[in-house]
Amino acid sequence: MDMLLQSDRQLLVRVTGRAAGIPGPENFALVEGEMPACPAGGVLVRVMLCAVDPAMRGWLSAEANYMTVSDGAVMRSHGVGEIIASNSEKWQVGEQVFGWLGWQRFAAVQDCDVLWRIDTKIAPAESWLSIFGLNGLTAWVGFLHLARPVAGQTVLVTTAAGGVGSVVGQLAKAHGLRAVGIAGGPEKIRRAVAQFGYEQAIDYHAADTPLSPQIAAACPAGIDIFFDNTAGHLADCVFPHLNIGARIIQCGTAAIASWLPPPTGPRRERDMLVKRLNWQGLVAFDHASLFPKALQELQELHKAGKLVAEDEVLQGLHNAPGAIQRLYRGDNQGRLSIRP
Amino acid sequence: MDMLLQSDRQLLVRVTGRAAGIPGPENFALVEGEMPACPAGGVLVRVMLCAVDPAMRGWLSAEANYMTVSDGAVMRSHGVGEIIASNSEKWQVGEQVFGWLGWQRFAAVQDCDVLWRIDTKIAPAESWLSIFGLNGLTAWVGFLHLARPVAGQTVLVTTAAGGVGSVVGQLAKAHGLRAVGIAGGPEKIRRAVAQFGYEQAIDYHAADTPLSPQIAAACPAGIDIFFDNTAGHLADCVFPHLNIGARIIQCGTAAIASWLPPPTGPRRERDMLVKRLNWQGLVAFDHASLFPKALQELQELHKAGKLVAEDEVLQGLHNAPGAIQRLYRGDNQGRLSIRP
Repeated sequence: MDMLLQSDRQLLVRVTGRAAGIPGPENFALVEGEMPACPAGGVLVRVMLCAVDPAMRGWLSAEANYMTVSDGAVMRSHGVGEIIASNSEKWQVGEQVFGWLGWQRFAAVQDCDVLWRIDTKIAPAESWLSIFGLNGLTAWVGFLHLARPVAGQTVLVTTAAGGVGSVVGQLAKAHGLRAVGIAGGPEKIRRAVAQFGYEQAIDYHAADTPLSPQIAAACPAGIDIFFDNTAGHLADCVFPHLNIGARIIQCGTAAIASWLPPPTGPRRERDMLVKRLNWQGLVAFDHASLFPKALQELQELHKAGKLVAEDEVLQGLHNAPGAIQRLYRGDNQGRLSIRP
Repeated sequence: MDMLLQSDRQLLVRVTGRAAGIPGPENFALVEGEMPACPAGGVLVRVMLCAVDPAMRGWLSAEANYMTVSDGAVMRSHGVGEIIASNSEKWQVGEQVFGWLGWQRFAAVQDCDVLWRIDTKIAPAESWLSIFGLNGLTAWVGFLHLARPVAGQTVLVTTAAGGVGSVVGQLAKAHGLRAVGIAGGPEKIRRAVAQFGYEQAIDYHAADTPLSPQIAAACPAGIDIFFDNTAGHLADCVFPHLNIGARIIQCGTAAIASWLPPPTGPRRERDMLVKRLNWQGLVAFDHASLFPKALQELQELHKAGKLVAEDEVLQGLHNAPGAIQRLYRGDNQGRLSIRP
């Protein structure tokens, strides 16, 4: 077993202040700590992997968000780990679990912070943060539950090779839709088509061709579902190609560098009305009751070879303070997590 | 009976060209014509009332729209009338009907252009264009079918005293929601509260107080449903007060004077995501299968005294070319129609 995991010294990352843009090293402090005790009614978890998510930007923002991590607190994150002590009737020592474990080696948490069991015999730990974790669940809820996909229709996905986008492409292919992806750089384009189910992928970094005609060419029948992880200019290029009755899933806003002052863009009201669009904001946890069903289908697709994961695991918590920026730069190769 | 209706001379309004903004007299020509014959398989209708609708602006626009009226054609419009000749098995002479009759005294139309029967013994002809016409049906479909209202929630409606808004307020009150209206001028504010079910109404013409604090004060529990007929600045003032999970129904875009070049405004993507909003464009005819059920409920509410109409009928087709501008200026008092 990895030396770092065997360490019995607690190591954790604290939030030190609000971030104006993308959180970086100036917003975090890596500190050693005491080995925590197992809390009354809770559990002590040895963390195997800590998640790094685009949504974390919002959690550290001074602006309103659906979730906030306070200054001084251990950075909130999903993670997978093994229960090494339990005062809970729900979770037993030795069980592998997914939950709100935070950026730390040992997580002393309430039993409600542990969300469900995982099984590293079915797939490696990192898959339980990606295709069987929030990425997979977000893609499943947004695409299959909210976007009302119909076989033969066209779905366009931004950050197509990202944690969520890579699953949406594969779900679309498995359900008989034509998936078109937008991603940054030739390597991501290649993987979107070769691995993630996309029939075609467009490189928005390639500045030689304007985006809109490329989208039109890749979507000859227009776009029925727009699964958007970026907002901003990319979305502006997509909107004119939406079909009447198209569904827009707002899963992320990665392309907008700053929300204060509020950025401006083309007004959508006329498109919304004339094309009778439906635009839905997506936070997967609003639909947690669907997770068991979603996990079952995701595992079946994986077993059938129709759902692959691509994960990048950084070794050591010292990588954590810069990891969100790595994500927003698009430097990660697949779903990013940290072995603490 | 009105002398104008007894006239046996055809009079009609033709479209003469595309309108850059709100269509006005320069876009129409009032002309006399031959009395039309009853078409094969169709009917000849003596028109009692011609509708004037905000949506007509889009039909004369050079830009893409869900419907267009070509240059030279009789202005398309809903209307109510009586069948005076029939070559159709569906419709009989003497029946009163609602349909696509156009701005003219006599409409020779296919039987599919006649949509349903009306009964001026239940309510006067103008009510079949307002509360029992497309206004009522649009309000019913948008509010009760699409916006998922819950008793106790707050709905905010722009153009609250308009043809659709006046019905939404009354439907909201009848279903136990708190309705707050925005309208222009003290008279519309008064009627919104006195007649149309609104608990409170805000005058956006009253420039002495900024709109946003007024909205906050009128909606102490935030806004759960935003039924928007205006878009633009009014909508910008409403968005910050939307609750998590709020539904936005885009029914009109009356406040935007010109769509080319596309106007800009605050980006909505972050609100859509963080508040998990659902934004739906509404064209009532997409939900025509619900109309019988809607008409039944609207008539029941009317019978119970819970749904009143306010209609303004202009006498004579010479009023038609300026009528759409009258609507957009907000000079109309209730649902506007023309007795041809």
